[in-house]
Amino acid sequence: MTLARKLTGEFLGTAFLLAIVIGSGIMGERLAGGNVAIALLGNTLATGAGLVALILTFGPISGAHFNPVVTLGDVFFGHLHWRVAFLYVVVQVIGAFAGVAAAHAMFGEALFFASHHVRTGASQWFSEAVATFGLLAVIISCSRTRAAVTPFAVAAYITAAYWFTASTSFANPAVTLARAASDTFAGIRPQDAPGFIVAQCIGAAAAVIVFGWLHANNKQES
Amino acid sequence: MTLARKLTGEFLGTAFLLAIVIGSGIMGERLAGGNVAIALLGNTLATGAGLVALILTFGPISGAHFNPVVTLGDVFFGHLHWRVAFLYVVVQVIGAFAGVAAAHAMFGEALFFASHHVRTGASQWFSEAVATFGLLAVIISCSRTRAAVTPFAVAAYITAAYWFTASTSFANPAVTLARAASDTFAGIRPQDAPGFIVAQCIGAAAAVIVFGWLHANNKQES
Amino acid sequence: MTLARKLTGEFLGTAFLLAIVIGSGIMGERLAGGNVAIALLGNTLATGAGLVALILTFGPISGAHFNPVVTLGDVFFGHLHWRVAFLYVVVQVIGAFAGVAAAHAMFGEALFFASHHVRTGASQWFSEAVATFGLLAVIISCSRTRAAVTPFAVAAYITAAYWFTASTSFANPAVTLARAASDTFAGIRPQDAPGFIVAQCIGAAAAVIVFGWLHANNKQES
Amino acid sequence: MTLARKLTGEFLGTAFLLAIVIGSGIMGERLAGGNVAIALLGNTLATGAGLVALILTFGPISGAHFNPVVTLGDVFFGHLHWRVAFLYVVVQVIGAFAGVAAAHAMFGEALFFASHHVRTGASQWFSEAVATFGLLAVIISCSRTRAAVTPFAVAAYITAAYWFTASTSFANPAVTLARAASDTFAGIRPQDAPGFIVAQCIGAAAAVIVFGWLHANNKQES
Repeated sequence: MTLARKLTGEFLGTAFLLAIVIGSGIMGERLAGGNVAIALLGNTLATGAGLVALILTFGPISGAHFNPVVTLGDVFFGHLHWRVAFLYVVVQVIGAFAGVAAAHAMFGEALFFASHHVRTGASQWFSEAVATFGLLAVIISCSRTRAAVTPFAVAAYITAAYWFTASTSFANPAVTLARAASDTFAGIRPQDAPGFIVAQCIGAAAAVIVFGWLHANNKQES
Repeated sequence: MTLARKLTGEFLGTAFLLAIVIGSGIMGERLAGGNVAIALLGNTLATGAGLVALILTFGPISGAHFNPVVTLGDVFFGHLHWRVAFLYVVVQVIGAFAGVAAAHAMFGEALFFASHHVRTGASQWFSEAVATFGLLAVIISCSRTRAAVTPFAVAAYITAAYWFTASTSFANPAVTLARAASDTFAGIRPQDAPGFIVAQCIGAAAAVIVFGWLHANNKQES
Repeated sequence: MTLARKLTGEFLGTAFLLAIVIGSGIMGERLAGGNVAIALLGNTLATGAGLVALILTFGPISGAHFNPVVTLGDVFFGHLHWRVAFLYVVVQVIGAFAGVAAAHAMFGEALFFASHHVRTGASQWFSEAVATFGLLAVIISCSRTRAAVTPFAVAAYITAAYWFTASTSFANPAVTLARAASDTFAGIRPQDAPGFIVAQCIGAAAAVIVFGWLHANNKQES
Repeated sequence: MTLARKLTGEFLGTAFLLAIVIGSGIMGERLAGGNVAIALLGNTLATGAGLVALILTFGPISGAHFNPVVTLGDVFFGHLHWRVAFLYVVVQVIGAFAGVAAAHAMFGEALFFASHHVRTGASQWFSEAVATFGLLAVIISCSRTRAAVTPFAVAAYITAAYWFTASTSFANPAVTLARAASDTFAGIRPQDAPGFIVAQCIGAAAAVIVFGWLHANNKQES
């Protein structure tokens, strides 16, 4: 793949990911008649299944990172040059905002509007650190030992993480920024985003250290 | 496979697809006690799981298109002769109506009755264009890079798309026509079908162009 | 595998299948607070996931039929001697009743009690014929073209069939007989069982003819 | 893998398993508005999907037992030295408590507090024996005949077992001990834990005998 194709893939994949997260949150909230658990079931099912489809579709094109901390992890392990990584992060963020706008357009909302969904405090930050630690653990382990199942493992992990963390697992700085521009089920107040992103980076760094050691003798597949 | 076997497979597969979409919609609506999100959860689970089974079952027989825009995409890429494609589209449409009639018979309804479910407007059309763009993206990418997982990727995509688009993702002209003949959960007013089909064709054409470029150097597998 | 091991596997697998179908029905009904769609979601999730586990577990031991019409289909295609098939059907029926008793014991009910759940009429019978036709179609196609995915295809099909047929898809004479001995969510009145079994046999026979022709040139794998 | 890495993997995996079981139980209970079936749907979805991710992630590191009876089964079949098994069980129990504390921290609860959830009596014990018998059956069969699908088979089995047993299938002594330290949806009174653990050991022993015989001629893969 040429770099242009890789960046196009990463842009489209991240845009679809956000369209799925935001769109299914709106659908769930509109239909669930106030039962938040039912809305979250729809949101979870759509995100988990969507990730399977997106990672299988864009994996062969761009690697299907859709997530700056995944890209930075690849730089750390020497699989990606930092210049390419920088471009990846840029298109991930742009793609994430494009996906939010697409979801809003599909549901007849304004393209962007700041969220009022409060998500802050130690429990939320600890949730994000755990969620991102686990996500990187899954990606590092699977990509080094059985790369063909990585799409299913990542999707399964996020499906679980929507429910077992108090923050419903953003686990992704680009996703966090873009969700601040949506005042819907999946939104987060702009002023709460930095805390989430710091926690995500701490969790990711811990996973890179621990799982780098655990897999010191395994080379990454494909 | 002979052409007769291929067309029989395409007919049966599309009929089962519609029986699943319509039948599970009726079941969901009847049981959910007015909570539309719960009805949609059942409808989604059945459609996603059903697609896994149907594509695995009919893939080796007919290719398991069940969808005119998928068939036309194959013509565009030179994998299918347009004469065969024409017959495919004919049996898809006939099969879709047969499936609607089968679902209605199973639930004790008249075989066909025009839908009164309003589905129109720019948000709905944009939803259908996005939904069909994504569906073709999944099919084009997976069939060229890891064909064995295509059934799972397509089913996962549609599972997500039922929730992240405002139209619940018809993404299929044959399905759209047949669903106009069902005044149930999954129906669409006959006068709203053309708008959906135009939007689907636009989304499909965009995907063929973009993903044809992205995979210019990958040959289709299997 | 020796015949004793095969019959033990078929007995245990069918018993677990019924324990799953009946047990999850009781659990769903007890917890769902009267919302039948939510009870059916739990029942469906358990049955679909349970089938994945059971077919993967018992497939290498007995073939994981758990179903007389599947066994008879194997006789028809010359894959199983009718004497072995007769023993298979006997242990399937005994195993099915053992599974019902196990489920009742787990939930503190009497081991057997006749069902009062009315399931009769042309719509129900047509549903069973369609459901069993589809089940055999999935098994015949997948076992001849990609046997490794058969467990997933069968489980996915039944997941869909719980929702798209009006009868919630028994599709299995041994299961039908045993469910007549359970007056719970998944039960069926004893006097309604024969109609279901006749419809299942008709659907199965049609599938054997149609898919035998479709796959006339494919030999069964594994 | 060195022993230190194996034990680290087993610790982390069991901790994540408990964080998922307890955390998703809290989330379900908080959001479901009193409908226990909906809470259990979320708890089930998270646990099943989480097990797929965890077993794929930690399988190549430690074998992904997360469960003393699985470890003891491996000793019985001669795949693990009892000294290593002893260390495995120790880190499983410590990891399980760490996971409970992590879940409580994420949801702003005290790290440990004794459960008041009554789970006792013959039906519950029989449920645990059946649940653990089935779990070991799945693991023994799949690991000897198609090891690559074991993660999916185990996750699918537990998904079903949450619904078809009256106890919601703990099926794991380390999990049982740790869940006694959580007064939430997934808890169990400390005085009820021994009964569960005895039943689990009986079920596991029965499975080792029966499936050891069924697979007498199959060697374990991988």
